[in-house]
Amino acid sequence: MITKVNLREKLARFSDHWSPKVLADLNDSHVKVAKIQGEFVWHNHADEDELFLILHGRLTIELRDATLTLEPGEFVVIPKGVDHRPVAEEEVHILLIEPKGIKHTGDVVDARTVSDWERI
Amino acid sequence: MITKVNLREKLARFSDHWSPKVLADLNDSHVKVAKIQGEFVWHNHADEDELFLILHGRLTIELRDATLTLEPGEFVVIPKGVDHRPVAEEEVHILLIEPKGIKHTGDVVDARTVSDWERI
Repeated sequence: MITKVNLREKLARFSDHWSPKVLADLNDSHVKVAKIQGEFVWHNHADEDELFLILHGRLTIELRDATLTLEPGEFVVIPKGVDHRPVAEEEVHILLIEPKGIKHTGDVVDARTVSDWERI
Repeated sequence: MITKVNLREKLARFSDHWSPKVLADLNDSHVKVAKIQGEFVWHNHADEDELFLILHGRLTIELRDATLTLEPGEFVVIPKGVDHRPVAEEEVHILLIEPKGIKHTGDVVDARTVSDWERI
């Protein structure tokens, strides 16, 4: 059965940070949402481009040679292999689209590294 | 150079209907926006799941055995092979994520079939 997904309703179901939840399968990728706050680790994904769409709050993404600041209704694709570090001074809600096998901490293993994605 | 994309700013750049514009590459897919109004053709995509995220307006997606009505902040993934027909009584703005080779009219060739995607 095909059902629509309401992002606001899904975001109300959890409160933990840095723990993306899978909402849907999309070809070889997952559509996920996450709540993030604070500084993540510098990392990259050798083989995967990663999309961040801001739903709520303001997200800074540090790159080695630039800093991007994203507001709701804005997205960025971080291409494969590019070092990046998300930083959220206050809580930010994001939609992520990433290949299914990705580790969100990329080439770095961190206390926040998730290998089994929770589905909501 | 990696730049963010502001959806509102991109949507202000065009007014034609049923003509998705490519905003970004994401692995084997394109991130697109489109403005649609009226009834599209019944079609399916044999090999591609297709994501519709509503940015503005209300979109009805007719399926053979159900009808979905989507509002801003809601999305649906239409799985490969599933017949569907988008219907927008008033203008709707959508974000689409689809494999690069997809025809938006799927298995049907229509006056609106696009083969070269415009990039904005």
